[in-house]
Amino acid sequence: MHFTYYMPTKILFGPGKLGELIKEDLPGTKALIVISAGSSMRKFGYLQRLQGILEEKGIAYAVFDKILPNPIKTHVMEGAALCKEENCDFIIGLGGGSSIDSAKSIAIMARNEGDYWDYVGGGTAKGQPIPNAPLPVVAITTTAGTGTEADPWTVITNEDTKEKIGFGNQYTFPALSVVDPELMLSVPPKLTAYQGFDALFHSLEGYIANVATPISDMYALRSIELVNKYLPECVTNGGNLEARTNVALANTFAGFVQTESSCTSEHSMEHALSAFYPELPHGAGLILLSEAYFSFFGTKIPERFTGLAKAMGVDVESVPKEQHPQAFLGALQTLKEKCGVADLKMSDWGIQSGDIPKLAVNARETMGGLFEMDRYTLSLDETIEIMERAYR
Amino acid sequence: MHFTYYMPTKILFGPGKLGELIKEDLPGTKALIVISAGSSMRKFGYLQRLQGILEEKGIAYAVFDKILPNPIKTHVMEGAALCKEENCDFIIGLGGGSSIDSAKSIAIMARNEGDYWDYVGGGTAKGQPIPNAPLPVVAITTTAGTGTEADPWTVITNEDTKEKIGFGNQYTFPALSVVDPELMLSVPPKLTAYQGFDALFHSLEGYIANVATPISDMYALRSIELVNKYLPECVTNGGNLEARTNVALANTFAGFVQTESSCTSEHSMEHALSAFYPELPHGAGLILLSEAYFSFFGTKIPERFTGLAKAMGVDVESVPKEQHPQAFLGALQTLKEKCGVADLKMSDWGIQSGDIPKLAVNARETMGGLFEMDRYTLSLDETIEIMERAYR
Repeated sequence: MHFTYYMPTKILFGPGKLGELIKEDLPGTKALIVISAGSSMRKFGYLQRLQGILEEKGIAYAVFDKILPNPIKTHVMEGAALCKEENCDFIIGLGGGSSIDSAKSIAIMARNEGDYWDYVGGGTAKGQPIPNAPLPVVAITTTAGTGTEADPWTVITNEDTKEKIGFGNQYTFPALSVVDPELMLSVPPKLTAYQGFDALFHSLEGYIANVATPISDMYALRSIELVNKYLPECVTNGGNLEARTNVALANTFAGFVQTESSCTSEHSMEHALSAFYPELPHGAGLILLSEAYFSFFGTKIPERFTGLAKAMGVDVESVPKEQHPQAFLGALQTLKEKCGVADLKMSDWGIQSGDIPKLAVNARETMGGLFEMDRYTLSLDETIEIMERAYR
Repeated sequence: MHFTYYMPTKILFGPGKLGELIKEDLPGTKALIVISAGSSMRKFGYLQRLQGILEEKGIAYAVFDKILPNPIKTHVMEGAALCKEENCDFIIGLGGGSSIDSAKSIAIMARNEGDYWDYVGGGTAKGQPIPNAPLPVVAITTTAGTGTEADPWTVITNEDTKEKIGFGNQYTFPALSVVDPELMLSVPPKLTAYQGFDALFHSLEGYIANVATPISDMYALRSIELVNKYLPECVTNGGNLEARTNVALANTFAGFVQTESSCTSEHSMEHALSAFYPELPHGAGLILLSEAYFSFFGTKIPERFTGLAKAMGVDVESVPKEQHPQAFLGALQTLKEKCGVADLKMSDWGIQSGDIPKLAVNARETMGGLFEMDRYTLSLDETIEIMERAYR
């Protein structure tokens, strides 16, 4: 039992917490607020509320509002240029994982020369050391999906090379995160489901990863329990604040899992899908892969599936041990059905079955590191096999 | 469900981790090593190993070796004076909670004028703001009891006023903690039991405190399970590294509990006992109080005892709900018996029954804050009643 624990972010969690930001010391005097290109941050008044808080605290700001659902390197570079031009000394990511991840990456490039892909590791990226510490980041989440508020990771797509790569280090944790489930009440059902499943897969993968720790296991199992229990209600009755709060908690816990453990190769495969098909939401991509992925690993590392099955509500005492992987898969299927995502097909997003070998190669080249986190090492053939089995 | 989470310490956990300190960036160029006045850090070679690591890293050091089991303010001031004289820029606490807590307090006074009691809050202490950030602290634990490696707290006794007060803030977390269970193999049985129970009470109190959070609850219940399962083996067979590792983990988890939740008035009462009877180990003092304390709260907040009973190994499904407090108390008594601490008496340490009202007043005056963490607010009479029931 050996591990290193580090998660230095301060987290304000709970309904109404955005309002309490007024009482916090913020890490600068002028913020670059990073939000999506969509209308929701203004439509629901979240941006205006944040601006009001900053004004009341005497903190200046500029707004960068171009982030796409699968955020791209071009916008990281543009945001960093705006940050320098405006002399902002910290970044606030307001929105879903795309805005907050972009905020983290902009925080790096606002303090360093060259191109973002000079510093990222994997694929064609150069993996150079980052000379200067990034600007501090405040994360304000309006979705429950990526867990980025409690981890150092940022996932950006290089549109030119079709590489979607996760990156981060000890300096890319948010300094402060606000998780206010009231801001999540407005997320529509389909996105709620995709994002909730993203959180679920972070915890499921983190639990079967070979770098799992006693701390990540604890967060993972609790997170899985909470998603399984509360996500269907969030999807069918999005206004239920109690359910939203519990899924938000599950998601933050999944962030801890990603910090202390890791995602596995399922995430690499999904990044390949959504790098080539940017319309595919990340959570949907994971749902598409999951049955094939977890049934494969159920045969290779069945011992990890007892915990997963139990967390998914299976009465494991009454099921023979060798059937725990199958029982887990059954519970996962039931959850998909309850959340209305059991019938997603790759072909819905235009993915061609003939693309699979190319996608598998992309997954291994751009996010090969996560294949090393699997307890069973997949060959290229097995990667293709899993992705082909997932194809419909 | 509202909480703030913050625990920025990096923790290296596991057998052999002291050796890995060589690979870590340490937060300064000259360390003040703070150790106890006892012989064990030298006898077991722990000090020499640390010195060797620092020498290999080109880091200078001075040693301050006066800390008592119940550490005192005089030594905080002396250590801070030595730190200034030697121009040390960080502090390493090596040993049990007493040395690490002293390191935290020395780190404050090495950077600030006046007396330590100017800054502490409670009792006759002045509670002034601390002008300068403390020096960074590295904690290397050789016992599993206080959880101080994962919390900001430091407990120091003012010998002149007989006040034993816990203190800390966002700046008094260790920057880095090393939890190496191999260093704990040498702890003798009785101390192992006292310290393990200290960790247990941190988690038990943290679970019944009114500021408990979903995160502290998770750490508390897991910590209680681990102490209950592994502490008897550590006491009877101290060389069992697996058992030591699990109790070390329980203790670190209990540190998280103290960070995210709080101790309750049981700790205030114990601080009064050991402020007046400094020979009384803190863990033993808690054991003396615990039956009376938890049976009182079992009648006031029975709903919190289901979780506690389950974590202590009670099959709660087969016990009627109203009997869960009693079932918990039975399991606690069994654990005390297994660890050889069921027969401790206050009178063993010279405590007089006539002292109790004075001790109860001291508890409420010096550590009154923890009484506010109870879900049921104790009167002075009830405080005396609990302490008198605990008297033997």
